[in-house]
Amino acid sequence: MPEIVTPPALVPGPNRSPPRGTRPIRAFFFDTYGTVCDFLQPLSRALAGLATREQLALEATRLAIAWRTAYIHATAARADPALPFVPLRAILADCLGAVLRRDAGIEPSAAVLDELAAVWHRLEPWPDAVPGLHALKAQAVIAPLSNGNLADMTRLARHAGLPWDVILGSSIARCYKPHPHVYLESAAALGLPPGEVCMVAAHQFDLHFAAGVGMQTAFVSRPQEFGGPTRPRVLAPGVDHSAAAEVFAEADWTYVATDFLDLAAQTHDACAPL
Amino acid sequence: MPEIVTPPALVPGPNRSPPRGTRPIRAFFFDTYGTVCDFLQPLSRALAGLATREQLALEATRLAIAWRTAYIHATAARADPALPFVPLRAILADCLGAVLRRDAGIEPSAAVLDELAAVWHRLEPWPDAVPGLHALKAQAVIAPLSNGNLADMTRLARHAGLPWDVILGSSIARCYKPHPHVYLESAAALGLPPGEVCMVAAHQFDLHFAAGVGMQTAFVSRPQEFGGPTRPRVLAPGVDHSAAAEVFAEADWTYVATDFLDLAAQTHDACAPL
Repeated sequence: MPEIVTPPALVPGPNRSPPRGTRPIRAFFFDTYGTVCDFLQPLSRALAGLATREQLALEATRLAIAWRTAYIHATAARADPALPFVPLRAILADCLGAVLRRDAGIEPSAAVLDELAAVWHRLEPWPDAVPGLHALKAQAVIAPLSNGNLADMTRLARHAGLPWDVILGSSIARCYKPHPHVYLESAAALGLPPGEVCMVAAHQFDLHFAAGVGMQTAFVSRPQEFGGPTRPRVLAPGVDHSAAAEVFAEADWTYVATDFLDLAAQTHDACAPL
Repeated sequence: MPEIVTPPALVPGPNRSPPRGTRPIRAFFFDTYGTVCDFLQPLSRALAGLATREQLALEATRLAIAWRTAYIHATAARADPALPFVPLRAILADCLGAVLRRDAGIEPSAAVLDELAAVWHRLEPWPDAVPGLHALKAQAVIAPLSNGNLADMTRLARHAGLPWDVILGSSIARCYKPHPHVYLESAAALGLPPGEVCMVAAHQFDLHFAAGVGMQTAFVSRPQEFGGPTRPRVLAPGVDHSAAAEVFAEADWTYVATDFLDLAAQTHDACAPL
């Protein structure tokens, strides 16, 4: 089985986002895992369930975070349209296997790994997410721009009640974020210039790449994404902040909002029909 | 501008649909123009509006039907994945231009043609369609499998209140119906074998191609699709029946239903989660 990969150093282009209010927003695109839904509690519960069933001593929350970090690295390493498009579920299963082998010294079956990978289809929306998506949908098109594939996003939307107009993202581009193709192909699928799309994410890495292709950006903080730890205002060099929630806006994003309802209040007069 | 095209003789493969009840339905795919929505009244009204504005004597209903026939032929002629993928809106505008030139002797501007092509984003759902889609969505995934592109289907869903889980069809396959790729790629996007999908259409042409790739099929008659004329039980050789509603099941479809609510009653015990 593949080992945990180190992603290449991915650097977004310069911010080409239009200044606030100069272009209408005709669609909101959403990072989903972490921004719309909490992954930590469902993944931790599933890993705790595995520990109980298999009578293992696992640090479920720590392993859940390590799994999420490994998958972010794995998709970043595959963020190249020239590579074959591997389903996300297979990537998630491989990453979990590598984490359990490295951090817990166990080797679950492929069937167990595949079943655990499906927990990503049963994440829980943050409390404001569903009412906030309905409010934003009244203003403009709403669509996930996730590394989740069409099947993953369809299952999650049915589980969590996410009222998407259309599902965009990795499957549309047949490539993974943060490659610019994923952002550009998703906008092109709606016939929109990137400047008339607003990318919404709790991860500023994602927003940097969206701004790099000219999208508007909305930073929505999810302080509980990692169960409490937050990233400091000034990043310490050499320190891994990947398992800390981003609570400070680290660039001049088009919008900075406390949640989706706050974002809807701010964008009320900025939107236009598709 | 391109002329009205004659499509190649497209012949579906043999029916490979599984017998009723042998496989679960995990997703319903819908033809949309004509099956979910009435196109005749909105197109006729738009063409009557053009006649009034331009002070022309147009037979709006007849031209609407000729436009729809021309677009069916044009997409069939483009049903080849090796051809460049042209947006449906451009095909619709070209077809309308050709019809107006041929049948009305007028040549509207490209802007007028494009604006009229957008009427396909504002079709009206048949009375049972929205409640029927909600009932079917409670049983399995629902998705359009239309020649409309992602942008077209997104706009129409917002206009008509169609509660799709995900939008599949031409944009996913980058090809037009009835090429088998459109059916197969749409099922593959959900990770489903074709036999666990039920294709729903008022056009048995579409169902023949779906059955040819192994999908289950549901024929739902829309007797008012062409404002009243219906296709006879026995087709007369050499007669063009393309502007007559199909009211008789002409093959052994998996389901034959009077509307979407009737279909939902019939499939209630046949469905399973994605």
